[in-house]
Amino acid sequence: MEAKANGLKKEQLHPSLHGPTNPMVTPLLTDLYQFTMVYAYWRAAKNHERAVFDLFFRKNPFGGEYTVFAGLEECIRFIANFKLTEEDISFVRSSLPSNCEDGFFDYLRGIDCSDVEVYAIHEGSVVFPKIPLLRVEGPIGVVQLLETPFVNLVNYASLVATNAARHRFVAGKSKILLEFGLRRAQGPDGGISASKYCYMGGFDATSNVAAGRMFGIPLRGTHSHAFVSSFMSPDEIVDKSIRSSDGSTICEDFVSLVQTWLRKIQCMRGIFGETNQSELAAFTSYALAFPTNFLALVDTYDVMKSGIPNFCAVALALSDLGYKAVGIRLDSGDLAYLSGETRRFFCAIEKKFGVPGFGKMAITASNDLCEETIDALNKQGHEVDAFGIGTYLVTCQAQAALGCVFKLVEINNQPRIKLSEDVSKVSIPCKKRCYRLYGREGYPLVDIMTGENEPPPKEAERILCRHPFIESKRAYVVPQHVEELLKCYWAGGSGKAREELQPLQEIKDRCLQQLDQMRPDHMRRLNPTPYKVSVTAKLYDFIHFLWLNEAPVGELQ
Amino acid sequence: MEAKANGLKKEQLHPSLHGPTNPMVTPLLTDLYQFTMVYAYWRAAKNHERAVFDLFFRKNPFGGEYTVFAGLEECIRFIANFKLTEEDISFVRSSLPSNCEDGFFDYLRGIDCSDVEVYAIHEGSVVFPKIPLLRVEGPIGVVQLLETPFVNLVNYASLVATNAARHRFVAGKSKILLEFGLRRAQGPDGGISASKYCYMGGFDATSNVAAGRMFGIPLRGTHSHAFVSSFMSPDEIVDKSIRSSDGSTICEDFVSLVQTWLRKIQCMRGIFGETNQSELAAFTSYALAFPTNFLALVDTYDVMKSGIPNFCAVALALSDLGYKAVGIRLDSGDLAYLSGETRRFFCAIEKKFGVPGFGKMAITASNDLCEETIDALNKQGHEVDAFGIGTYLVTCQAQAALGCVFKLVEINNQPRIKLSEDVSKVSIPCKKRCYRLYGREGYPLVDIMTGENEPPPKEAERILCRHPFIESKRAYVVPQHVEELLKCYWAGGSGKAREELQPLQEIKDRCLQQLDQMRPDHMRRLNPTPYKVSVTAKLYDFIHFLWLNEAPVGELQ
Repeated sequence: MEAKANGLKKEQLHPSLHGPTNPMVTPLLTDLYQFTMVYAYWRAAKNHERAVFDLFFRKNPFGGEYTVFAGLEECIRFIANFKLTEEDISFVRSSLPSNCEDGFFDYLRGIDCSDVEVYAIHEGSVVFPKIPLLRVEGPIGVVQLLETPFVNLVNYASLVATNAARHRFVAGKSKILLEFGLRRAQGPDGGISASKYCYMGGFDATSNVAAGRMFGIPLRGTHSHAFVSSFMSPDEIVDKSIRSSDGSTICEDFVSLVQTWLRKIQCMRGIFGETNQSELAAFTSYALAFPTNFLALVDTYDVMKSGIPNFCAVALALSDLGYKAVGIRLDSGDLAYLSGETRRFFCAIEKKFGVPGFGKMAITASNDLCEETIDALNKQGHEVDAFGIGTYLVTCQAQAALGCVFKLVEINNQPRIKLSEDVSKVSIPCKKRCYRLYGREGYPLVDIMTGENEPPPKEAERILCRHPFIESKRAYVVPQHVEELLKCYWAGGSGKAREELQPLQEIKDRCLQQLDQMRPDHMRRLNPTPYKVSVTAKLYDFIHFLWLNEAPVGELQ
Repeated sequence: MEAKANGLKKEQLHPSLHGPTNPMVTPLLTDLYQFTMVYAYWRAAKNHERAVFDLFFRKNPFGGEYTVFAGLEECIRFIANFKLTEEDISFVRSSLPSNCEDGFFDYLRGIDCSDVEVYAIHEGSVVFPKIPLLRVEGPIGVVQLLETPFVNLVNYASLVATNAARHRFVAGKSKILLEFGLRRAQGPDGGISASKYCYMGGFDATSNVAAGRMFGIPLRGTHSHAFVSSFMSPDEIVDKSIRSSDGSTICEDFVSLVQTWLRKIQCMRGIFGETNQSELAAFTSYALAFPTNFLALVDTYDVMKSGIPNFCAVALALSDLGYKAVGIRLDSGDLAYLSGETRRFFCAIEKKFGVPGFGKMAITASNDLCEETIDALNKQGHEVDAFGIGTYLVTCQAQAALGCVFKLVEINNQPRIKLSEDVSKVSIPCKKRCYRLYGREGYPLVDIMTGENEPPPKEAERILCRHPFIESKRAYVVPQHVEELLKCYWAGGSGKAREELQPLQEIKDRCLQQLDQMRPDHMRRLNPTPYKVSVTAKLYDFIHFLWLNEAPVGELQ
């Protein structure tokens, strides 16, 4: 997609990398304290000091033991276009104390990301706590300004991609998964991002037209309850004619054909009163508009008493003309029961009227679904072919945020640590390299972090992997395969080779392949086994040396 | 702000209304089924039929009994600029079955919102379930396309504004509330919207620079842990000079002055070992940059052993030069205990060294705070003056979505109903008017919906208010004051007078005033009393007539 960055001038580092999807992602989309800090760095003449920051999270979301990394492309597009405008600078000036020195604003005017390097795990990878997803190096005065946008761009992207992967896991590979979340998403690009990253995490399509256009995601959608209730009765249908599927004949009165079929269905079962005429008109009208794509929402009035017989009447009428209806959507009620009853009814019709395939028509379900409800449906047994999932998927109700952080790990080649009373919040110092070690069965066994200049782990060579904080937790590993995780995705103006950004489809494929490759006990929903994240013995010793060095010693008297 | 719409031409309905804040909010930010439905309406020649839709929610969020309505301005800006581009239309064409007729795309090319009218409750109002927040009228082919963007723009806005109001309620009016959520928000404009609507709901400021610029919200922020750990020791501070507050003298070695104070503090208490030198350097350096705004994050290494004495040494050195430090921020640990200890220490210093006001310095707390933790802090007792709240506030972890819906209630002057096995999901038919009835004490007593042509409730005149669905729930009310809730906010090209959009500050003022005006039992956190939402006797009868009319009657054999 993108040309390698060899010897490009600073003014046009990567002209082919346009900005982030959302034009509101600008250098001002950040916390004020980034600018106050940069002023203080500048005032202390520290702004050019070379810093290394790690972006990582501390805990997998949703009670699981894995996370899908997403949002990298947006970060790279952001830094490729990072530049403060004059308007930005004068707003920053007005937001800082009036006695800040003018020279600072000249400094801001000059900065871009030409001295920044970003090393990242491939987007769509399965990732784990503490391992840096991005390692960002550069002048602290610039890199500090990247913290908030990077964390913002990675946090929700990774959270919702992981949520999608979990929904795919519980639904199984054979089901169609549709993301229907736009209206309930947290703001407009909550919706757009959700569509992109749910597709990445394993969904098949979205209802979101804008996301379909931006990212090439397949679109799906038919009609709502409003469409059904907007009709009063079949009498209002004026143009009742429809050409047969092969174009050979014209049916002049499709409405009557539908009504004939409805009577046949009613005779067949003998259990129906009148079906709702508003609904019958709506289905008939929708079929006239979309004879090749007839999928009806059947729960506006009553699924079994009205929606299903009305749908079947229209589907059978279409069948007479050589069209094959797609199926129905259920948006309320007991989905296990209703999908089962519907399937039985479809099969009975197939048998009674000899319509091949009628029993196999698609049943889509879409009422406040989430991992738990799909799991419960699976346990009860159901006949749903496709799930349309909205609110719980895109807002990640089960856990609405991933706690990505951006921590300084080195400055001027000096490793730095951030302590905390809570050990899980202590950061792992040093500019690090990260590797994934694979075992004989092809599963990843453990991720390991090393100091930058340590020799890398080698295939078939035993290495001690230590828990970064708990002394007694350690294991020898003989990897069958070693994969370095952090790749250069942004080389600034350094001329170093960098990874090209990949098309969404490739990222999705990687994601699905990596999820498949995980040992099943890490993936199960109940009490999954934690995947091990470790450091080398040398890094372990250094972390604990630095920790003691920085922690103040109390004095008891 | 905006000129009244009198006789403007369609091409320039409201030229002063620029588009939505997020440029990604376009007519394509919608569900595909809106376009398939509009095609089917068009195909059935129904697209010009005049429809009325209500936008409402069914349940207050967060287990509460009130909601703050927000997002209206964005909706109005959206429709004021609603127009499909040629690119939009060709994408829609490519997304629909290839046999869709060309005339439809000509129709899409011509539509705008000049025949649409929007009646809405004032933004920032306290609102309740079932009452329409917006009533949208117009040709069904146009209004149908507004559903998804409207619901998207109102849902999260109202949810997060309500969340902010709840945080304000529990924190009390005297505390400073700061919104720090950008990095954890669900995408970039999850962050930007959160900043706007949290301010509306009662927050004082945000850390989000972009939101500060867009909406004029006060900005706050100082420094992070990275700033602290980027320093090694005070030796690295090169420019140690600082002019006194009144400009009369220059202190040539502020670093030594700080160290002198640190020794005095250590002598005074005799309980400190060495404080962390990296932190001392960072604080000193930050004070040199911002002598008038010195606020330090004190938990990078150890709050009581290092952060507080280091901060006090710098604050006392500043005090020598006539500057008054602002205070500290705590971002981890037991906030009740640490804020109390800090306050005691500040007071002891004020007394020992005779520094007036030192004991009253601001203590800001900011570690994964939410309604519950603030409530718990209040119960324990604490000394926090300001709360910085991020993740739980902006992602609304307690309930990540408000279930706003957009339901057809009338078409061609025919009332329409959407039924459901779940009574709470049955829609209230008819084009309605809505009133808030106030009692003697000035509290709102009940909201009531009437048919469009019913006489409005009158002051001092008894009216029967009925629960819309439960027959036995009803009450007579004699209102002291009657307020009509739905106002015309968009008159299309009709030339009707319309409400002007209000500045954010006025909306915020309304919100705080309305929240204050509610009866306390509706507002309490535990078991709040539901606010009553009712219909007139006439509307009640009509709803139930229509319900029976549309629901299919079962037949038992």
